Amino acid sequence: MKVSFQGEPGAYSEQAIFEYYSEAETVPCESFEAVFDSVASGESDFAIVPIENSLAGSIHQNYDLLLRHNLHIAGEYLLRVRHCLIALPGVKKEDIRKAISHPQALGQCAGYLRSHGIKPEQVYDTAGSVKLLQESRARHVAAIASRRAAELYGMQILEEGIEDNAENYTRFLAVGREATVPTGEAKTSIVFTLKNQPGALFKALSVFALRDIDLTKIESRPLQGKPWEYLFYVDFIGSTHDEVSKRALDHLGEYALTLRVLGSYPRFRK
Amino acid sequence: MKVSFQGEPGAYSEQAIFEYYSEAETVPCESFEAVFDSVASGESDFAIVPIENSLAGSIHQNYDLLLRHNLHIAGEYLLRVRHCLIALPGVKKEDIRKAISHPQALGQCAGYLRSHGIKPEQVYDTAGSVKLLQESRARHVAAIASRRAAELYGMQILEEGIEDNAENYTRFLAVGREATVPTGEAKTSIVFTLKNQPGALFKALSVFALRDIDLTKIESRPLQGKPWEYLFYVDFIGSTHDEVSKRALDHLGEYALTLRVLGSYPRFRK
Repeated sequence: MKVSFQGEPGAYSEQAIFEYYSEAETVPCESFEAVFDSVASGESDFAIVPIENSLAGSIHQNYDLLLRHNLHIAGEYLLRVRHCLIALPGVKKEDIRKAISHPQALGQCAGYLRSHGIKPEQVYDTAGSVKLLQESRARHVAAIASRRAAELYGMQILEEGIEDNAENYTRFLAVGREATVPTGEAKTSIVFTLKNQPGALFKALSVFALRDIDLTKIESRPLQGKPWEYLFYVDFIGSTHDEVSKRALDHLGEYALTLRVLGSYPRFRK
Repeated sequence: MKVSFQGEPGAYSEQAIFEYYSEAETVPCESFEAVFDSVASGESDFAIVPIENSLAGSIHQNYDLLLRHNLHIAGEYLLRVRHCLIALPGVKKEDIRKAISHPQALGQCAGYLRSHGIKPEQVYDTAGSVKLLQESRARHVAAIASRRAAELYGMQILEEGIEDNAENYTRFLAVGREATVPTGEAKTSIVFTLKNQPGALFKALSVFALRDIDLTKIESRPLQGKPWEYLFYVDFIGSTHDEVSKRALDHLGEYALTLRVLGSYPRFRK
């Protein structure tokens, strides 16, 4: 089975693939567009894309790509992002003067770096920083990236979990060409638009509240080209294959300007 | 007046400062933490921080920093992000073979670069890419960054607005030490937590719907350490100084586990 992801080998997205699928051949892609195209064209069977991070927020671009492609969400996975301080084999922690990584990873480890007197330096990618370090052979420099990136480049992990905030999770979606029929507890992701008038959202949410359907995510997004319309992302517990959820979606269709089901899939449980 | 921002001189955040304040001395900071600290300590009078982008989504980190500091939102500004293709003076567009910029900017111009046969190469920062280009003096390379970054480094703009999607806006918040009393149409930003039970959000939103208060943003965020609690960001039209909004917030306080007003401020209008 071939599964696409955005980034270099050793990226957190690739780690998510290995944790979510027991066996898979990973296909690195340069951009999220290329990731979606690879599934749409049949080159890959699935894609794993990040959709929200607990510190950085939702990744709207991947919602846009879901809307532009006729693909379906087949599953979800929650990855705890654990940054590692990575160095050449034999290097000691007290030798490290500088750390290179993606700005977001450096920012998430700012307190650790400060307290250890390590100067941050930005590069374009987490896994890429390990590659750069391997090429440079610098013994006073560490890279900050995933455990897998360290292993891939034969490097040493000086310390694992150096992020300042342990509540650093990324939610990934598995995306495929076919709609799945989830067994067990299911989640459904939808996107809809509403006229921007007071109470419109309240009405829309009534279709779930009146049926005791639990929402796990809601997010509004202004449509810049259409200043009087809003786009909403909602995840709820249930599947388009159960009667109550079907009725709620029919009911929502009465209020929504547009409504699209992105997929029903098994809910992630640790 | 001193206003802090995250990034290098020429960053889009700095451009937002110049467009929002008629006169200001800009203070570049390495991280968002440093930006907030500079205002809290009195070193700067205000900060301008990005809070959401129309393509990339909300920046949760800056919401976290708002919650951690005793600061107030004093205003908002919507910046249309227009990427420029920037080269050394005298270089022609047909000479360009490679473009360097932050991965996000490169991704937003992917279609343009492809159709012009220009190869993207990732560097850590948009404004930083112009600095790098100026130092390298490479005549077959362009940087992708703001108009201001081009001007700052004495470079030439080959083309402006090369982003594939014109609907690329970043919403910035002005943050200061004092709560403002907005005149004219006002917006209020709040953060609250709710017990995770079906209908909890519906009840919470009723306090606005029952009073015909218009919401302009809603976003849920799971609290990872507390799996049964959710955090909500809501912006609504109104000020904590008007009676109806005050009553709605009192009413919300009956349902919310926690409630914090981040500020009431003049609504941005083009």
